[in-house]
Amino acid sequence: MSFTIEFQPVGVRLVNEEPLTLLDAARRVGLSLRADCGGAGTCGKCRVQVAASAHPIPPVENDRRHLSEKQIGEGFRLACSAVADGDCKVLIPAETMLSGQVLQTSGEEIDLQVDSPIQQQAVMLPPPTLEDLRSDFERLKDACGLADLTADMKTLRRLPEALRSSQWHINLIHHGHTVMHFAPAACRPLAGLAVDVGSTKLACYLLDLETGCLLAAKGAPNPQIGYGEDIMARLAYAQQGAQQSQKLHNLVIETIQNTAVEMCRQVGIADDSIADACLVGNTAMHHFFLDLPGASLAVSPFVPAVSAAQNVPAEDIGLIGMPGMRVYAPPVIAGFVGSDHLAFLYACAFGRDERKRLGIDIGTNTEIALQKGNRIVSVSTASGPAFEGAHIQFGMRAAPGAIEHVRIRPDGRLELDVIGDRQPNGICGSGILDALGEMRAAGMFNRRGRLEKTHPAVKLDANGMAFFPLSDDPVDGRTITLSQHDIDQVLLAKGAIRAGIEVLMDYLKIQPAQIDEVVIAGAFGSYMLPEQAIRIGMLPEIPLEKIRAVGNAAGAGARSMLVSAHARTQAEALTRRMEYLELSLYPDFDLFYARGIQA
Amino acid sequence: MSFTIEFQPVGVRLVNEEPLTLLDAARRVGLSLRADCGGAGTCGKCRVQVAASAHPIPPVENDRRHLSEKQIGEGFRLACSAVADGDCKVLIPAETMLSGQVLQTSGEEIDLQVDSPIQQQAVMLPPPTLEDLRSDFERLKDACGLADLTADMKTLRRLPEALRSSQWHINLIHHGHTVMHFAPAACRPLAGLAVDVGSTKLACYLLDLETGCLLAAKGAPNPQIGYGEDIMARLAYAQQGAQQSQKLHNLVIETIQNTAVEMCRQVGIADDSIADACLVGNTAMHHFFLDLPGASLAVSPFVPAVSAAQNVPAEDIGLIGMPGMRVYAPPVIAGFVGSDHLAFLYACAFGRDERKRLGIDIGTNTEIALQKGNRIVSVSTASGPAFEGAHIQFGMRAAPGAIEHVRIRPDGRLELDVIGDRQPNGICGSGILDALGEMRAAGMFNRRGRLEKTHPAVKLDANGMAFFPLSDDPVDGRTITLSQHDIDQVLLAKGAIRAGIEVLMDYLKIQPAQIDEVVIAGAFGSYMLPEQAIRIGMLPEIPLEKIRAVGNAAGAGARSMLVSAHARTQAEALTRRMEYLELSLYPDFDLFYARGIQA
Repeated sequence: MSFTIEFQPVGVRLVNEEPLTLLDAARRVGLSLRADCGGAGTCGKCRVQVAASAHPIPPVENDRRHLSEKQIGEGFRLACSAVADGDCKVLIPAETMLSGQVLQTSGEEIDLQVDSPIQQQAVMLPPPTLEDLRSDFERLKDACGLADLTADMKTLRRLPEALRSSQWHINLIHHGHTVMHFAPAACRPLAGLAVDVGSTKLACYLLDLETGCLLAAKGAPNPQIGYGEDIMARLAYAQQGAQQSQKLHNLVIETIQNTAVEMCRQVGIADDSIADACLVGNTAMHHFFLDLPGASLAVSPFVPAVSAAQNVPAEDIGLIGMPGMRVYAPPVIAGFVGSDHLAFLYACAFGRDERKRLGIDIGTNTEIALQKGNRIVSVSTASGPAFEGAHIQFGMRAAPGAIEHVRIRPDGRLELDVIGDRQPNGICGSGILDALGEMRAAGMFNRRGRLEKTHPAVKLDANGMAFFPLSDDPVDGRTITLSQHDIDQVLLAKGAIRAGIEVLMDYLKIQPAQIDEVVIAGAFGSYMLPEQAIRIGMLPEIPLEKIRAVGNAAGAGARSMLVSAHARTQAEALTRRMEYLELSLYPDFDLFYARGIQA
Repeated sequence: MSFTIEFQPVGVRLVNEEPLTLLDAARRVGLSLRADCGGAGTCGKCRVQVAASAHPIPPVENDRRHLSEKQIGEGFRLACSAVADGDCKVLIPAETMLSGQVLQTSGEEIDLQVDSPIQQQAVMLPPPTLEDLRSDFERLKDACGLADLTADMKTLRRLPEALRSSQWHINLIHHGHTVMHFAPAACRPLAGLAVDVGSTKLACYLLDLETGCLLAAKGAPNPQIGYGEDIMARLAYAQQGAQQSQKLHNLVIETIQNTAVEMCRQVGIADDSIADACLVGNTAMHHFFLDLPGASLAVSPFVPAVSAAQNVPAEDIGLIGMPGMRVYAPPVIAGFVGSDHLAFLYACAFGRDERKRLGIDIGTNTEIALQKGNRIVSVSTASGPAFEGAHIQFGMRAAPGAIEHVRIRPDGRLELDVIGDRQPNGICGSGILDALGEMRAAGMFNRRGRLEKTHPAVKLDANGMAFFPLSDDPVDGRTITLSQHDIDQVLLAKGAIRAGIEVLMDYLKIQPAQIDEVVIAGAFGSYMLPEQAIRIGMLPEIPLEKIRAVGNAAGAGARSMLVSAHARTQAEALTRRMEYLELSLYPDFDLFYARGIQA
């Protein structure tokens, strides 16, 4: 019988079948509690409060030693001694919490499983004698009890010295049945690196592979941006020659490496504590970080060099960590549907229920997946960079000074929210979406997207071109405006997204009213207001309570696959079930697109 | 029901269960017949004579087209059309034979099996379209029908260009399920390299991996000899530092590489046609060619770094061949019983019958194995280099000018056989053995090995030291002699060998008369006269007809394992069954040794 342990205030739940201590339960969901003694029951630091429990959790001797009668009466227990074997709700006091939970994206919960392919164990070997002439490696194999242990030449060459200098007492770290490294003592934390390699930004996470705990997180801009704003420009640059292609590969890898080193320093561990990595990204980024040739991604029919999951020696792609470190790259789905999309869907539990669910990751290319029963179909649609502020006169990324929200009051007065609460110097994606939603509601442009020059809020410039001024007070002499051209760009972008959604619904024969849930990934997805997206027709009419922003779900998926061999297997199985639909081949796609653009 | 096809005049037999053509049968045993049309039945070149057959092999249309009625009446058939399904004996005319058989050492026959882990196939792929968006690698996997095909990053990086430049029609070469290489056309011969890495000499063989045919063979001196005559000296040199150790590794690898390139040029194939290698050697050589640290081999208890079979990327040990080439290194048994010993025993079918057999490989260290029932026990004994001519005043290797055989006539007259039939300038192992055997028979030294100064043939030098002059006519003013010191050296050497044999017989409770067969490997084993070895007590009294020299059987074993995955499995299984006996721990070993030295 499975039961659920709910941890508050973080709101993470663990579903389990076997009784386990609350400390173990917390570890399983990636919560790091104070337990200076390592769970031995001696430090008394892991106190938690059992707020409700189907089965009583009686206090034990350790509780009485470290807690007052009053505390025990209030439900306080040491997490290391309290065994849960039924539904319960546990409050974690602030002083007991070491780190936040790992695998929760806003509103999205994953049953976190920690079963990294990397393991370590202390091994004590009997030294060789004339009566016991086994070779060093046979001796190691016998002593650690792994009959099918293997090691490459580089590792075997280090073994004799490692065994002798440690007096035949080493800490063995292995990846599956392959020896990675031997150290004189246990390596804790044994760290892993999960990275969502975006075209604009890399989201890097450092995790403890043994507990699943998040040790550090850090973002870094993708320096490839200097060689092309969008993917196609970068692929074209890479086609100029081996040096250019190598350059783009190196830029990504160096950024990952440097960020990893910074995170290691931040948590006070050696750079070579990183024993594993999981990298996700769109298919071009996937090819860039693996240093695969991207030529076939740059021309129709846009096929990847390889789509299956790769588990490659880190050094093969230029990453440096623990000796024997490997990099796991989950599968990509198609030329424009990458492993970030897979990681997003995996994190949002696609394929694990049969609800009708829509998953959208908005970017220059927007990937959309629709699940119906046991089918999951994905498309990629070229929505362009309008929602990243590009190709919009006053567009900018979501940074201090960007207008992130716009409201037009019934009296026509404008209300602006500016990031950093300062004078605006541009407008970012969510602001642009708001502005168009509000303008549309106020009748400032028609279905075809033409600005109504007769509307009192619409102004004309010296050339008679219509525009909508957003900031009344010029800053640095500039007035932030939205022009006809800007509106056209946004409508093209949202039209591409809407067309993708409509094609998927048409293909799987689903009406908007039947959709159970819409999950929207990415930073823009977190800041945009779904009602505005519906107003301008980017999304069909779906009740707002069914729409959920899940933040960087691709990063959450990558973290999940980093720490769990089971998650890798599940995600790969999900990939095999997924269908990719090529929009350009879909009957009457042009019509879907033309209708999608309408405001 | 299995049946046997016997090929003459080469004397190779194939045991098979399924009917097959004589051409296929010949290929399986490594015999290369003329078949210009590739076995299509059109060239008529593969004619053979069926001398006897349990089931008649009736002539078919092809036979009538290419052979006269008379020939058909005499049993001539085209090997490509004649199907054998019962015992038969086949004569191969000289004009039909392209090359000699591969796996026969003098007198030693192996049931040759050719099933190399390397395979090649032509693959035609449908080019990608918008309707068929599979990635390049998925496309390849589907087209070649190998669902679990894998490739490393280096190979994957080459794939897109290889597929497109060949218009999607490539020749795929794979090692098991791992892609090695893709070429525009079939690679024939697909070559493999077998090397017996001796301390003194490397025996290199180039084989066709698809037919098992020997393409070329070449010996090369081991240049490590400049860094130490014997293994212990070289191990000591390697201990001086990483540079020295690297030097000894590089010398072996460069020699193998250069010899391989020479053989490729000799048979007119590209250097990178070599797709696989099998290297055997004593344990020190094994560690040198794999670049494993040899420190533990240099000090008691002399344990290897690793003993199990290794199958490593060629580049990991510095060898260059076809991309993706691997090197197979069969297991070693102990610090002084290497993979050459295993290859020797495997080639001589140890473990495949239950006869009482003794296998001896005489060298500076002599490895001896004794089989009784299903037990095979090995020892290594430090016999020293006397039989290689070292530490003997006029000793030399078996080269022109070396006395290789010595007879003392009843009248006391000396008869010498000199290599190259010229004036002698030294004496090699077989000559030394002869001389001592003859001297012993003539009563020139006693049981303790002391020269009888009173014997008419024994002379005294200016210091009164006894010696035996071998060449009456001084050449270049020198008289070739054997001194008391020389005799002592030889008795120490033969004593070590005899002690090893006696310990094994004692351990397995076997009397000399029970031994069914003695096989002696190596060049010295081929030239020495067993009766002399018995006369001086190197071997126990065993009927001469039971003693067989098998030449470089280690090389034959290496060739067998090179071309057959099955042979590798069998040899590895043989290793697991073998017992190693540490002589120094054997009760009363000193007594065995003391008795062994007696003449």
